[in-house]
Amino acid sequence: MAPPKSHALQTNMDVDYVISYRFAKTADKSVAISQFEKLVEALASVGLQTSVRDGDNDSVLVFVKAVSDEHLFGEVYRSRVRDWIHGVRTAAPPKETREALEEEPLYEAERLRIIYQLITNPVEEGGAGITPKEGEWKSVESVFALHDHRANKDWIRKWTTSWTLTTEDLDEIRNRFGAKVAYYFAFTQSYFAFLVFPAAFGAACWLFLGHFSPVYGIISCVWCTIFTEWWKHQEIDLAVRWDVRGVSRIDTKRKDFRPVKEITDAVTGEKIQIFPATKRLQRQLLQIPFALGAALMLGAVIATCFGIEVFISEVYNGPFKSILVFLPTLILTIANPINRSILTNFATMLTDFENYETQGAYHAALTQKLFVIDFIASYLPIFLTAFVYVPFGNIIVPYLDIFNVTVKPFAADEKQLRAPKPGTFTINPDRLRKQVVYFTVTAQVVNLALELIVPYLKRRGFSKYKEMQSERAARNGGSSTARTDNDPPEETEFLKRVRQEAELDVYDVTTDLREMVLQFGYLSLFSVVWPLTGASFLLNDWMELRADAMKICVEMQRPTPWRADTIGPWLDSLSFLTWLGSLTTSALVYLFSNDGLGPDGHPGSIRGWALLLTVFFSEHVFLLFRWAVRVAISKLDSPGLQKERREQYLVRKRYFEENLSRLEKLPKAKDLGEEEITREGLEEEQRQASLREATPEVRFWARQKGWRETAKVGKGFIERAAVEAPTQRQGRNETKKEL
Amino acid sequence: MAPPKSHALQTNMDVDYVISYRFAKTADKSVAISQFEKLVEALASVGLQTSVRDGDNDSVLVFVKAVSDEHLFGEVYRSRVRDWIHGVRTAAPPKETREALEEEPLYEAERLRIIYQLITNPVEEGGAGITPKEGEWKSVESVFALHDHRANKDWIRKWTTSWTLTTEDLDEIRNRFGAKVAYYFAFTQSYFAFLVFPAAFGAACWLFLGHFSPVYGIISCVWCTIFTEWWKHQEIDLAVRWDVRGVSRIDTKRKDFRPVKEITDAVTGEKIQIFPATKRLQRQLLQIPFALGAALMLGAVIATCFGIEVFISEVYNGPFKSILVFLPTLILTIANPINRSILTNFATMLTDFENYETQGAYHAALTQKLFVIDFIASYLPIFLTAFVYVPFGNIIVPYLDIFNVTVKPFAADEKQLRAPKPGTFTINPDRLRKQVVYFTVTAQVVNLALELIVPYLKRRGFSKYKEMQSERAARNGGSSTARTDNDPPEETEFLKRVRQEAELDVYDVTTDLREMVLQFGYLSLFSVVWPLTGASFLLNDWMELRADAMKICVEMQRPTPWRADTIGPWLDSLSFLTWLGSLTTSALVYLFSNDGLGPDGHPGSIRGWALLLTVFFSEHVFLLFRWAVRVAISKLDSPGLQKERREQYLVRKRYFEENLSRLEKLPKAKDLGEEEITREGLEEEQRQASLREATPEVRFWARQKGWRETAKVGKGFIERAAVEAPTQRQGRNETKKEL
Repeated sequence: MAPPKSHALQTNMDVDYVISYRFAKTADKSVAISQFEKLVEALASVGLQTSVRDGDNDSVLVFVKAVSDEHLFGEVYRSRVRDWIHGVRTAAPPKETREALEEEPLYEAERLRIIYQLITNPVEEGGAGITPKEGEWKSVESVFALHDHRANKDWIRKWTTSWTLTTEDLDEIRNRFGAKVAYYFAFTQSYFAFLVFPAAFGAACWLFLGHFSPVYGIISCVWCTIFTEWWKHQEIDLAVRWDVRGVSRIDTKRKDFRPVKEITDAVTGEKIQIFPATKRLQRQLLQIPFALGAALMLGAVIATCFGIEVFISEVYNGPFKSILVFLPTLILTIANPINRSILTNFATMLTDFENYETQGAYHAALTQKLFVIDFIASYLPIFLTAFVYVPFGNIIVPYLDIFNVTVKPFAADEKQLRAPKPGTFTINPDRLRKQVVYFTVTAQVVNLALELIVPYLKRRGFSKYKEMQSERAARNGGSSTARTDNDPPEETEFLKRVRQEAELDVYDVTTDLREMVLQFGYLSLFSVVWPLTGASFLLNDWMELRADAMKICVEMQRPTPWRADTIGPWLDSLSFLTWLGSLTTSALVYLFSNDGLGPDGHPGSIRGWALLLTVFFSEHVFLLFRWAVRVAISKLDSPGLQKERREQYLVRKRYFEENLSRLEKLPKAKDLGEEEITREGLEEEQRQASLREATPEVRFWARQKGWRETAKVGKGFIERAAVEAPTQRQGRNETKKEL
Repeated sequence: MAPPKSHALQTNMDVDYVISYRFAKTADKSVAISQFEKLVEALASVGLQTSVRDGDNDSVLVFVKAVSDEHLFGEVYRSRVRDWIHGVRTAAPPKETREALEEEPLYEAERLRIIYQLITNPVEEGGAGITPKEGEWKSVESVFALHDHRANKDWIRKWTTSWTLTTEDLDEIRNRFGAKVAYYFAFTQSYFAFLVFPAAFGAACWLFLGHFSPVYGIISCVWCTIFTEWWKHQEIDLAVRWDVRGVSRIDTKRKDFRPVKEITDAVTGEKIQIFPATKRLQRQLLQIPFALGAALMLGAVIATCFGIEVFISEVYNGPFKSILVFLPTLILTIANPINRSILTNFATMLTDFENYETQGAYHAALTQKLFVIDFIASYLPIFLTAFVYVPFGNIIVPYLDIFNVTVKPFAADEKQLRAPKPGTFTINPDRLRKQVVYFTVTAQVVNLALELIVPYLKRRGFSKYKEMQSERAARNGGSSTARTDNDPPEETEFLKRVRQEAELDVYDVTTDLREMVLQFGYLSLFSVVWPLTGASFLLNDWMELRADAMKICVEMQRPTPWRADTIGPWLDSLSFLTWLGSLTTSALVYLFSNDGLGPDGHPGSIRGWALLLTVFFSEHVFLLFRWAVRVAISKLDSPGLQKERREQYLVRKRYFEENLSRLEKLPKAKDLGEEEITREGLEEEQRQASLREATPEVRFWARQKGWRETAKVGKGFIERAAVEAPTQRQGRNETKKEL
């Protein structure tokens, strides 16, 4: 009586989250059981209903949903109040929960986020305090929501058949996967849309102007600047649209933060954990040796391989040349990932050591360090070719003789090593272009393919392995297959799907963002070498957007819908790359202005002052232009800003009215203005004045009482003066005559 | 029975403001009277008590004070609520006015500001709508508060006898003259304190390293950067201290703003006046021709005078040399102020044309334009000497022959004009130093003297003129002296003082700030030429601080105590000058590295690439350093930030508690967790399930009811698996063996 397969994909059994509890790691059976009981109790204590099913080998799956809507609504209300207090919402939510939810219905991502926080937040903040893979919850392998397969299918179908994404498509992502993922797609979509221009213009330049065209260089820099600044504007707009403006200000404390001391604020009674900023600053200074070390480590490998490659392909002529040519690629392929993982570990350790207080600060610091590594690994090869090999090739290549010594044993004939004498060797000016093409086309395609195919193969291989394993287990005892046989028949398909999803990787949006930012770097730094770069990226990104959607739906667990109001530290990377682009582009245009052939390895033909002047001029024009673009964009209005202004206006109006109604009770200043001066009043005043030994001040003010009397006295002064005026004017005239 | 003079200085008769109403301008007597009545009525209508006295010729003085404390408190409360709504205060003021004022007493500047706003704010915002010198209130010459002479005297005495100003001194300024004036003094005091180091270090460099020392250059740039960034930090700190953080966000609408159209927002019903940003942007583009024009106008005069000066002092040898030498100074002295006032008018017109919506934006735009004018007028002469005359003198000076033609008629002997042949003329390398000394010592001293002496002479001259005039008037008719004779004898001295204060100038803090910023420019741009610059400024600023205090107390009307949370657009000027300093200093150090003698007019000895490399390198080191300083300073804690955090915490806590008490009424999620599974409950569930044609979802969740049952089932799974585990592990081992 099992429901048809399609049904298994269509229902999630109202499950909000699945917790995978793997007890294999726990040696002691009773410990595993008591910890499991604790888990279920903790979940129940925050109002979550639980149901357990058998998982794959050595694990159980705990299904979780909110006990009732009423309970969930309470949590939603709490979350919204917290948002309001932190300034994410302009107005406090209405006092009745029901009303609040009717006015602003709960969307899927909000529901899932709130339940996730209910599960993982510390107990003192009202959560169950379950931290996957950490501390006492080491056995909790993952906490994940189930994919909505029907919606996923619709999504993929829609995307693969349409050319562009609308804002509504992005809204849908935000509603289903949260603002953080939506920001990635919004960024990539904006970037994609902006790419149309450099793609078209680049193609035209490629056809009519050739490589290293100054016109293309300028337009490319302008475009990169406008894109970066426009995105900053767009980010704010989206934040308002998605009601997340300011969420990055809500800092979550890092659990691993180790304060030096804890004091209690004398005024507020708040406990403050202190870690002195100066101490952190000292630790942060370690970033300088780190960056240098990373540059050295990666740079040494890259430079060596580069040297070997140049030597083999252009100097060496001995045996095995066709094989040896692959040597540098081999070295790079092996050494680079090793280096990078070592450096990444270092970066993480360093960031841990810097001991940040909040999750946000930690993340930003780590991202910065990773960007340094990425930057060196991605762009250094091209930098070497453009600014070392091509201009100084003729001077440097002869020193590659050092490799000769190594290679000599293999060379049968001395002549096979045509040791280049200065002047006889000619550099290969096409090398730079080839390299750029490699990084902007080949590498991108390979990357995209890897992103899709590797996880697929991994998944297939893993399930194959599982199958084989359980077959073997069946042959041995037969109990393992029997375990899933325990499933209620109508749930079989559903549970199978859940078990599959439990095996999937966790989606990390940072990786995808990083990829896009690095791609943008090639465009801003080197696209002047090969103007088709933009066109290549345009094609690639159309695929990329869809592939990423696919990846999220198929290859990964459903991401926890975190909120965000920016793409975070990557924004700084974008700005940095745009700025650096103004330097490299102008330098490349100057260096290779000689018909794209470059200085041909003769540095003599480069005029230092001209190169520097070009770069200096270009950078300052860029800075000025960027400032102008910033000012111009900041003046632009947008739907998001309008919405925000409108909300603020309404809130202010409401607050003001609330407070003014309170003010009504106060004596109003105006009332007294109309007061009549009655004889009685004046007499009363005089009496009082004589009573309390009038001071000069009292007498000063007592001379005129009420504005009518002031007006009367003033009138007298004016009338008198107006009579005098002619006499005086006459007097002045006389003065003039006298002079 | 007149009170002694000292008493007149000691009491202000409880007067808050004095309004000087000059009716001479109004031709028609009756119009003047009715307008005066309107004035007094308007004042009375907002709860102000009035009392009129005769002023000087053709004017009356209206004395104003709040009718009663209760009325004033209402206004204070309104103002504080408005602040809270705009985010200037973290918490709403307590609901009882009395309580609010007891908790946070009213200080003088707040009282005066509120009354001033009551007088000048538009009627629809609750003010009397009296706008001095504008529209229908043209006859209202000025609205000013009376000096508190006793406090002023104490202030001056204290300052002249102490070396440094403490934060409490600044607090006092803020309490009496408002935050805007206090910011000027805080800035100048910070700058003064920071100057100690470059003064000492500069003197040491001057003694031991000479001019153009690279060491001094680097340290000077570092110091300027730290000062600028530190001040930004300090500004925020002071804003929190003075409860003005965010006041610049409270925009006051400009009366002269001319919207293109007015629409009514469909959602809020708010009336919005629209002037498209794009249109303004187009108008702002006029700033480019304006800046070019200003550079051309001022530059032409300066360059011409410079040429003439060089020609006369170093080429010309004819008659009248001793007189002609003063010609350029004469031209500059006449032409510069004319040019500047023309340009200032232009700048004002341009800013008017740009049609800003708020007072703040208008002011910022105007300040920017004035800075451009100041920049050219102040620094261009030195730029010309350093970067044109010294390096290219030998090439350019011969072309000054053109002046020969003009001078020829005067020259008796042709030989008096020793027409320089290229190579024979030698430039005067001392010229640059002399010029810097002139601008940093002579000009500063002259300026300071003018600031103190000119207003004094003006005041004396004016009162002398008045005296003479009234003497003459007395001779003619005797009525004018009689006018003041009308004063009640005990008020004579007081009224005399008020009449004097009414004649004083209005203090504009921008002028003083401008002076300091321009002074900072000399330090950052050119102090490497003459390292004693810092010492000179240190002395000058000690005087300046005291002179400004004196000026405010004696020479000027008491300033209206405006609020501010920054020194405004001058901050950008500071940053700009610091940045430019990194360029000029490095260029100067390179150019004059030749023992301070400079390139001696032979540009051949300058290596273009080396100069550019120096500047390029220096600029980027500066940018990197500035970024590091920014990061470091942003991490520093300060009393202000602590105070702010504390207030925010308290507000959040209070809001949260208020809202949580509301939440108490909601069903709490936790309650259900402890629910017991009773047999009856289960049976009830089952009955319900069968009743409503159970869906798979209902059946899924019905299998385990309550966390205890989940725990029990899970225990079963784990126990079973734990039994299986060894078998399986064995199975895996077998697999290994098989491989």
